[in-house]
Amino acid sequence: MNALSIRDIQQGLAIGEFSAQDLAQVTLAKIEQVNPDINAFTEITASRLLQEAAAIDQLRARGETLPPLAGVPYAVKNLFDIEGVTTLAGAELFSTKPPAAIDAFAIKKLNAAGAMLSGALNMDAYAYGFTTENSHYGATRNPHDLTRIAGGSSGGSAAAVAAGMVNFTLGTDTNGSIRVPASLCGILGLKPTFGRLSRRGSQPFVASLDHIGPLARSVDDLALVYDALQGRDADDHFQSTRETEPVADKLGHSSHLRCVVLGGFFETWCDIDAKNAVARVAQSLEALDCITLPEAELARSAAFLLSAAEGGNHYLPALREEAERFEINSRERLLAGAMSPSAWYTQAQRFRAWFRDKTLPLFDKFDLLIAPATPCSATLIGQQTMRINGTDLPVKASMGMLTQPISFLGLPVVTVPLMTASGNPIGVQLIAPPWREDICLRAAHRLEIQGMLAGKITR
Amino acid sequence: MNALSIRDIQQGLAIGEFSAQDLAQVTLAKIEQVNPDINAFTEITASRLLQEAAAIDQLRARGETLPPLAGVPYAVKNLFDIEGVTTLAGAELFSTKPPAAIDAFAIKKLNAAGAMLSGALNMDAYAYGFTTENSHYGATRNPHDLTRIAGGSSGGSAAAVAAGMVNFTLGTDTNGSIRVPASLCGILGLKPTFGRLSRRGSQPFVASLDHIGPLARSVDDLALVYDALQGRDADDHFQSTRETEPVADKLGHSSHLRCVVLGGFFETWCDIDAKNAVARVAQSLEALDCITLPEAELARSAAFLLSAAEGGNHYLPALREEAERFEINSRERLLAGAMSPSAWYTQAQRFRAWFRDKTLPLFDKFDLLIAPATPCSATLIGQQTMRINGTDLPVKASMGMLTQPISFLGLPVVTVPLMTASGNPIGVQLIAPPWREDICLRAAHRLEIQGMLAGKITR
Repeated sequence: MNALSIRDIQQGLAIGEFSAQDLAQVTLAKIEQVNPDINAFTEITASRLLQEAAAIDQLRARGETLPPLAGVPYAVKNLFDIEGVTTLAGAELFSTKPPAAIDAFAIKKLNAAGAMLSGALNMDAYAYGFTTENSHYGATRNPHDLTRIAGGSSGGSAAAVAAGMVNFTLGTDTNGSIRVPASLCGILGLKPTFGRLSRRGSQPFVASLDHIGPLARSVDDLALVYDALQGRDADDHFQSTRETEPVADKLGHSSHLRCVVLGGFFETWCDIDAKNAVARVAQSLEALDCITLPEAELARSAAFLLSAAEGGNHYLPALREEAERFEINSRERLLAGAMSPSAWYTQAQRFRAWFRDKTLPLFDKFDLLIAPATPCSATLIGQQTMRINGTDLPVKASMGMLTQPISFLGLPVVTVPLMTASGNPIGVQLIAPPWREDICLRAAHRLEIQGMLAGKITR
Repeated sequence: MNALSIRDIQQGLAIGEFSAQDLAQVTLAKIEQVNPDINAFTEITASRLLQEAAAIDQLRARGETLPPLAGVPYAVKNLFDIEGVTTLAGAELFSTKPPAAIDAFAIKKLNAAGAMLSGALNMDAYAYGFTTENSHYGATRNPHDLTRIAGGSSGGSAAAVAAGMVNFTLGTDTNGSIRVPASLCGILGLKPTFGRLSRRGSQPFVASLDHIGPLARSVDDLALVYDALQGRDADDHFQSTRETEPVADKLGHSSHLRCVVLGGFFETWCDIDAKNAVARVAQSLEALDCITLPEAELARSAAFLLSAAEGGNHYLPALREEAERFEINSRERLLAGAMSPSAWYTQAQRFRAWFRDKTLPLFDKFDLLIAPATPCSATLIGQQTMRINGTDLPVKASMGMLTQPISFLGLPVVTVPLMTASGNPIGVQLIAPPWREDICLRAAHRLEIQGMLAGKITR
């Protein structure tokens, strides 16, 4: 039952093949069975799930029209506020906080669409990491190979979907935190345009780079969830006032997409598995050319600086008062970031404007840019370095090196999973112009119907 | 002839009472006569002025319709690029730079409107100051009293207008650099909404706070120049895409304005002259109540931090290579700003969002806020401190303390001049909601027709 798509669920509920409460029970059983191996969940909201399921079944009993995500089990990265649950943001620091008083804006949207919340998911502390080897809540294990990382920082979000525990999850992406774990766990992830979706009720990390977005196992599911998440939140000042448009019913749109591969930095810093995955996608999408982004490496450095500075600013009061409770890999990075010269920070923001100016005109010629999502497939839990292009790179810092320059631009990206020869999945980024999530999703849909994408795991 | 308004000039040219070349000659003679005492000009573009006058007279000879600012002499703060002139930005550092290749965007707009450029004007180095006591190019003297400062950083721009050398000038305002000298020199200044006018071709100081704007002797002149400056510049990424609307022909609009006086910080930090000026304006505009901006003092501090950090970042390469050429009062401030912790900078930007959230709802109840422009009228050149509210404040840093919180919000402001009992003018800020320059100008117009504003100087 957990291999059902969102539309399968809608149909099953409509014809009475199963109830929402059946779905909730199956979900809880699956989590109970699988999660101990995976360590994706930090909190299971069983009673809420059952209550939401009962509410859907009451709608059914009364013969009312069901909302578009009715009965669909999901879970969220544990930095989203869930009413009655303490928002951990992956950090021991927050474990003694009182429970959240109200749901995050995104959760409200999903619940209004009928989705059923099953719990909160593991992540790197403060969303500052790419591996979800959480020093307090434990590592999340990759469902494809339990000895390997799930990627991060939304590692629990990717693993829960890949292991079939829920149909979709919410993650956040500051420098790659949706795309990296989606890549390593072999599922789809959408990082929308910066400013597209309200972030209210999610623990901030880097105000000028944070995005929220969904992870799912099929393009249609991803698009349906994205559509449910869209909508204006007047209380989120980073959200754009731009009008939104549902995209899920337009995935099959047949207009030609002019696609191109990102070379240079994106070609240099990946292994043969990633190169092969990109080549297969490029061939399918008829991308014949290769272009380079100017100064992509500088963009990555600037994203690092912004993250350390804004993250450091955000946590400075806590670093002063409760330094001993900080995640050990983050404490010094955050302190150093807070104390970094403001000239570095402003230079990074200044460079960002320059980099956008240089990059956005590419979309006059191309509709979609193709790049690997990670330098390689999942490394082993505890592995410190990975050899890429003849160089030993630190895993924790480098797994997001190919996603950072893209989120720095704020562009919408869908990462799609391909299977490597070694049997571990790897993702490819499909990158569109600002506000054109529809293009990323349409391209992903083409690859999916061509059978290009990694299949679902059945455990 | 230099007491003529812009509309007087249009009429005089139309009926042949004088030619544009007459106006240019009178302007040059006036500058020659008055400027040595005032030290407002650092460059007189005599041949350009005469050439532009000849072009206007050719239009007249052909009987063509004249553009709205035809034959109106003006000058610009020396941080605007003038083709063929070195852009000094008040700094010795730039004196050896090659001349600018093209005019600033604003100058192009004014020339397209027929205005005639007479030269470039003195300022505080890098626009970092409130007194125009320039350590390299000398102090600009206040036309009302040559022993007193003109204010800054657009001191030359205010003094040139107050002394009747030109009809209007351009200045820039980061923390008060249009409003402070307009206040001290007894003229009108408009700081538009942040993002309203293109800044392209003006030397940047603090990207997130810099504004350009006009200074003039009457509300109608100010509005006509503002109208000529409006217009979209696709190459200025800080400019809003918001549509603009001419305002000069709507100054007499009679709708009621709900006006209120800013108390608290703005009442505490000004002397009896400033308080009296505000009271007179309040009475004329029927402002019966007084409100306080929450944390206005913090807003001032945050504006200082942003200025030092962004200004420091901007000048850091030059500070490293040519520190000895830096203006001595600025060098350490800029270096300290560049090296200030990025956590301070990001906190200041974070506070800015909070402060806007708290402040903008005031405009649900009120159309116009009234506050003094400077704590007192012009101090003596060389005077280090001024006594306000029983406290000795440093003149150089404090003359803009009442303008800083307002520009930090990005709100449009017209400062109007009143005459104090001592015979020195002082300005009052008329502050409107974002994008409502028309409201500031209409309020200023009401005060003007009521005879409230300080008269023109005739020397």
